[in-house]
Amino acid sequence: MRVFGIDCGTEITGFGVVESDSNAREPKLVCMAMGAIRLSKKKPLPVRLDQVFCELTEAMERWKPDAVSIEEVFYSVNPKSALKLGQVRGVALLAAARQGLPVAEYAPLKIKSSVVGYGLAKKEQVQFMVARLLGLSEVPEPADAADALAAAICHIHTAETLVQQGAGDESLHAGGSGPAY
Amino acid sequence: MRVFGIDCGTEITGFGVVESDSNAREPKLVCMAMGAIRLSKKKPLPVRLDQVFCELTEAMERWKPDAVSIEEVFYSVNPKSALKLGQVRGVALLAAARQGLPVAEYAPLKIKSSVVGYGLAKKEQVQFMVARLLGLSEVPEPADAADALAAAICHIHTAETLVQQGAGDESLHAGGSGPAY
Repeated sequence: MRVFGIDCGTEITGFGVVESDSNAREPKLVCMAMGAIRLSKKKPLPVRLDQVFCELTEAMERWKPDAVSIEEVFYSVNPKSALKLGQVRGVALLAAARQGLPVAEYAPLKIKSSVVGYGLAKKEQVQFMVARLLGLSEVPEPADAADALAAAICHIHTAETLVQQGAGDESLHAGGSGPAY
Repeated sequence: MRVFGIDCGTEITGFGVVESDSNAREPKLVCMAMGAIRLSKKKPLPVRLDQVFCELTEAMERWKPDAVSIEEVFYSVNPKSALKLGQVRGVALLAAARQGLPVAEYAPLKIKSSVVGYGLAKKEQVQFMVARLLGLSEVPEPADAADALAAAICHIHTAETLVQQGAGDESLHAGGSGPAY
């Protein structure tokens, strides 16, 4: 299973591709790719959104994931920030839809728990544990790329748990693993 | 000048195409098309966003506007609604960017003033005046389509005023007519 994680932001959107070989005796996670899309504030918003869409689409076409995993938005942000983030997020979700990929959403707490074992983990702890789980020699930079890899790992863990519990792939593809939209 | 107006919503996104012949002695506004994209709550969010993107892109390709005009978002909404609206808005702005169209944003007050002459006009007043300005025999339905036509009319009025004031097309195409992003 290959999962494309996305961490949306109005300045930087991180992405990461993680593969898991669930047929192996000891399932191993491998980082296939990671990256960060940096947006220039000087460019008009539609151009910035086009950049996010094109770069995510390009990476999805290149890495051919089975699913996309994305963090749910934490609603404590103010309306202005929520709108700005929503615009980027809408474009990221569209990129997945245009590639015909199922999308799973996970709460930030769930992603951190899945990687660090503690929902309120700090940014550095997430980076450290992502590097460890993926066998990377250095922590992923920027933190947005680490968060995207963490979202991908969270989906793989959830999917594997569901498979162990006897749930079919169908429930996953219907978005059953993440919260409903 | 032909302008494509968009009124984004999480359930219904309206659009409308208005043409103005600024070379005529008495500039006349003509409604070329209008429509409403209705989203089913039953479908997953990425699929709904794809529907908005595809229907807007199709209409833009068909009507070949010179510019897109869109309402600025009123920040009194709560963060949850702002995020949801932002997702649709991001996709609408992306559709414009992918068609290489300049986008102008206007505050709701400015759009209503431009059409009704009064910034706090009610929905029905906007529908009535849009019908009158465009010479329609019936008020545009749903109200979302009327709001989209109003956004297009607002951009045409602003563009004509700028031309009268001696500002070139360039300032318009740089988004100078609407608030900066």
